[in-house]
Amino acid sequence: MRNLNEDTITQAVLASMANCRDARLRTVMTSLVQHLHAFARDVKLSEEEWFTAIRFLTLVGHITDDRRQEFILLSDVLGLSMLVTAQNNVKPAGCTESTVFGPFYVEDSPAYDNGADISNGAQGEPCFVRGHVRDREGMAIPGATIEVWQADQHGHYDVQIPGPDGEHTHRARGRLRTSEDGRFSFRSILAEPYPIPHDGPVGALLEALGRHPWRPAHLHFMISAPGCESLITHVFRHGDRYLDSDAVFGVRSTLVADWVRHPAGIAPDGRLLDVPYYTLDFDFVLSRAHERK
Amino acid sequence: MRNLNEDTITQAVLASMANCRDARLRTVMTSLVQHLHAFARDVKLSEEEWFTAIRFLTLVGHITDDRRQEFILLSDVLGLSMLVTAQNNVKPAGCTESTVFGPFYVEDSPAYDNGADISNGAQGEPCFVRGHVRDREGMAIPGATIEVWQADQHGHYDVQIPGPDGEHTHRARGRLRTSEDGRFSFRSILAEPYPIPHDGPVGALLEALGRHPWRPAHLHFMISAPGCESLITHVFRHGDRYLDSDAVFGVRSTLVADWVRHPAGIAPDGRLLDVPYYTLDFDFVLSRAHERK
Repeated sequence: MRNLNEDTITQAVLASMANCRDARLRTVMTSLVQHLHAFARDVKLSEEEWFTAIRFLTLVGHITDDRRQEFILLSDVLGLSMLVTAQNNVKPAGCTESTVFGPFYVEDSPAYDNGADISNGAQGEPCFVRGHVRDREGMAIPGATIEVWQADQHGHYDVQIPGPDGEHTHRARGRLRTSEDGRFSFRSILAEPYPIPHDGPVGALLEALGRHPWRPAHLHFMISAPGCESLITHVFRHGDRYLDSDAVFGVRSTLVADWVRHPAGIAPDGRLLDVPYYTLDFDFVLSRAHERK
Repeated sequence: MRNLNEDTITQAVLASMANCRDARLRTVMTSLVQHLHAFARDVKLSEEEWFTAIRFLTLVGHITDDRRQEFILLSDVLGLSMLVTAQNNVKPAGCTESTVFGPFYVEDSPAYDNGADISNGAQGEPCFVRGHVRDREGMAIPGATIEVWQADQHGHYDVQIPGPDGEHTHRARGRLRTSEDGRFSFRSILAEPYPIPHDGPVGALLEALGRHPWRPAHLHFMISAPGCESLITHVFRHGDRYLDSDAVFGVRSTLVADWVRHPAGIAPDGRLLDVPYYTLDFDFVLSRAHERK
């Protein structure tokens, strides 16, 4: 344990964990230390670069609060989130694919009945979303919980924009349940492409790397039902210019769908709309728990 | 860029940096992404484990402020700091070795004349420190700046203990200059072993890993002089029980020295002390800039 050099330090750190009683933690930390040290050796990280990294992580920590999760954003733009999502969600053929969770999920979003308008004042063109939740055999899954969240036409999620009194209101975000025949439907607003928050350290990193911060337009879904594997995914909008350069690497072809534009007139909820509106039809297929690979 | 899986995502992330105009940044980030992804694949990191890591880093960020640097502490206990120090400070034979910087350095510490008492109220047994700063040929280096900092007998650095008014006072910390014959001397307090701050997330990690948080007693030195390589190092106390299990892996045999105990009496500064005191003699050897390997 004395006179450790760049070659011997790794083994010394691993040996220091000999008394760890959590076997999985020891496995994870052993691999982490080996890769972290290999990285520092491979690039011969300088002391100045090390300190730049310390300052960067400090900024990431300080901008993170209850409403903004810059560490998740960092994980997203480095492709770590999609990698972890991919390797933990290998689903049986025919199931809807998963994609990244993102930093904007909120627990306890408001419950709505099917057909309700969940926009709650969020700005954007009207959009009616409807579909089924089924299993791989095509059987409807009634009573499935569907959580949906999305950005407004300015690219902001509700959690990013406090109200005039500093309070946050749930907008374009809600929780529904599928009907007896596995259907769901709601009104919201058109999904638009938006840049991930790029006024913080992660934005500065993207800029330095010559990368743009844009994500293709999408709706977030988290769907759960008794006896089924939960699904965290998006539906992406066909034709979006960022489908092949998503800042967080989350696009899957099977999740791209058409938002159909309609002229002003009678909308799917039976009301007369004096502006154009969109419809999106998308069905989800969950795997039964016993099908888990 | 669509349908990336755990095997193809790494190349996609690397490709996204194609427009990076900072070649070194691209090199560093390419290696970082490769190792980060390899780690996640090697241990098949679960989504729950990923989220535990996000929460851990958030806690590290939130406890870090102007006075506490938990990211440096994390780097220290994972051996990354010592690795970076070692690979950037390969010095010519005969030079004093470097060790970790640690999280407790403060810029603009107070200047003292040689012989002064820098403890400024820090509690501990009196200790008189003296030595020379020389080059490899044994030539005295006059006018070298010596910054010294240390913990008190309770194991706390001044930055860890605000005064009654919330203000911080520099204690057991100061800046000196070597005399014309390269000498320095000051009075401070005896260095004692202490645990690194372990009431935060890094302490919880050490506990989970079955590791103790202790560091062997030491004095920090940062020494700089025109035309010389700066030196960041410690002097460790011979006989300390933690010399072979330093929580931050920083001990080097050449940096271990004797603190000699003396009975009450006339101290090196000529004053009568009615309590026992210690003396430490330690010489530093700097490399001339042109000797840099």
